[in-house]
Amino acid sequence: MAKAGQVIKCKAAVAWEQKKPLSIEEVFITHTGKRLKFRSFPLVLGHEAAGVVESAIIPGENAFSPGMMIVIPLFLPFCGKCDRCQSSKTNFLLPDTSLAKVADAPLGKVCLLGTGYGAAINSGKCALFGLGAVGMAAIIGCKNAMAKTIIGVDTNPQKFEKARLFGATECISPNNGSKSIQEVLVEKTTGGVDVALECVGKPDVMIAALESTAEACGTCVIAGRMETETMSVPVIKILMGRTLKGTYFGGWKSVLGVPKIVDDYMSKKLKLDEFITHTQPLNEINTAFNPLENGERCRHLCLSVLVDFFISMCLFVDPSNPRVS
Amino acid sequence: MAKAGQVIKCKAAVAWEQKKPLSIEEVFITHTGKRLKFRSFPLVLGHEAAGVVESAIIPGENAFSPGMMIVIPLFLPFCGKCDRCQSSKTNFLLPDTSLAKVADAPLGKVCLLGTGYGAAINSGKCALFGLGAVGMAAIIGCKNAMAKTIIGVDTNPQKFEKARLFGATECISPNNGSKSIQEVLVEKTTGGVDVALECVGKPDVMIAALESTAEACGTCVIAGRMETETMSVPVIKILMGRTLKGTYFGGWKSVLGVPKIVDDYMSKKLKLDEFITHTQPLNEINTAFNPLENGERCRHLCLSVLVDFFISMCLFVDPSNPRVS
Repeated sequence: MAKAGQVIKCKAAVAWEQKKPLSIEEVFITHTGKRLKFRSFPLVLGHEAAGVVESAIIPGENAFSPGMMIVIPLFLPFCGKCDRCQSSKTNFLLPDTSLAKVADAPLGKVCLLGTGYGAAINSGKCALFGLGAVGMAAIIGCKNAMAKTIIGVDTNPQKFEKARLFGATECISPNNGSKSIQEVLVEKTTGGVDVALECVGKPDVMIAALESTAEACGTCVIAGRMETETMSVPVIKILMGRTLKGTYFGGWKSVLGVPKIVDDYMSKKLKLDEFITHTQPLNEINTAFNPLENGERCRHLCLSVLVDFFISMCLFVDPSNPRVS
Repeated sequence: MAKAGQVIKCKAAVAWEQKKPLSIEEVFITHTGKRLKFRSFPLVLGHEAAGVVESAIIPGENAFSPGMMIVIPLFLPFCGKCDRCQSSKTNFLLPDTSLAKVADAPLGKVCLLGTGYGAAINSGKCALFGLGAVGMAAIIGCKNAMAKTIIGVDTNPQKFEKARLFGATECISPNNGSKSIQEVLVEKTTGGVDVALECVGKPDVMIAALESTAEACGTCVIAGRMETETMSVPVIKILMGRTLKGTYFGGWKSVLGVPKIVDDYMSKKLKLDEFITHTQPLNEINTAFNPLENGERCRHLCLSVLVDFFISMCLFVDPSNPRVS
């Protein structure tokens, strides 16, 4: 309201090129920006944020008027009108980004829900490959779905304690012993798990996850992001009745789902605080990456807590503005 | 009944080695045979048969006493008791073969149902890759499921007329034009089909089928048999929400499903006669292969019509006897 029509000025950690430290700069948010080329430099990293609307490009155009209303920007949009939004088969759309209006909640925590949580898992035996933020969230999903066996798999045993806190019944490192992780899991579960979720983004881990599922009816869900590589799937592993599928944003219709998840968090049905291992000021952002690599922290997603989320908000609220990702 | 305890003597087309003509020989069916190694030579080809029980190894052991009862041997077994048989998620078991008792029906036709028909397809837009017997049966499945668009894909345009007879609304050869078949299908269906069924058994056709489906919610079902190769799946094609899955025996619980399909055939709900292009005596079996290769005939499955099905029956009815496949 107060800033309607004004240029918004704030600090941001700007990436100018690959593998170089981020540069803390003062940036100006204007409403005239052209659409940037997808992921071209310079860019402001992070797709998880929460905030309040400072100003709207077209006042009254939607339900997001400036004020203390809390919103979460969503990289997966939802218009509510098109065939896909009305289909129960998908949550996937490709126009622009969206905002979800949520209940009064701590911005520095609910921003994490910009990624969604938990692919819908309703099953007896689950295995989660990769115990980062997505894998941990999937453990919660499995637990809420009353899974009896929830096995966390990660090369870093330091993550096992937290995985058990979230609900894992067992944790295994794929590097122990002479057998492959899929052999170990198939033996341990007498034939394979019902659902394996890949949360790493590596093709060989995806194959291991697929082969860990029961041959006649197992489902392998790919949640780990990987844009360029291929996975070599032995046809026979699919032919006998397995299912390989992807999930995006945990299968939620973004605008409808996120407010419900925030409600779950506020009523203590969903653990979220436990995902946050450190909170650091923006000017320490470059030193914050190191502990991610050795597994001390959940993963880079948490970095979005560190950046000035007002930046993202202003960009997202303008449909003619660049997409930040 | 008459043959209880006797050695059964009959003619069979025996394969002694790869790529050599089959040898028509008199064979003796005994009940003492050891289990053969999977697919070792010599073997009697064909897994589709129908017949009557001539004798039973353990009389009274099951519901299949000798007599004029018509049975179809099933390569996919069903015991009805184990976890898998009682699960709605799978039709897949791995003990021994089974028999289905069916209504009075022509043996030379219902034998084709030993492969099952039609993966469960309940969808708006379908594409079938490969217009052999499985692809044609899938067209019927799509039609019964009220699909509005049913596109048959085959390199041999000679098959299109029959595909239309079964219910295809359109047929396309992947060799026409400069675009890939997946590009053509995505354009034609404004975003991709809901379900693509691969009935060929080639990894590159499987990828084309996968990429022909709608990116957010399409399903690619692999029905074409392929035991040794891998398919190179671009991870991004799965991640965005597609599903890749296998089907075996059309998803039917074999012993329960086949009698129902025979009933459908007898009450003219299911076209079956149209799959049979030629009927030849056993001694012409070697010349019967040629027209299969140029697409004049539906595919080799029909060969099971040609062989003396009593042979298969006797083998199948003995649980301690070799599996024929």
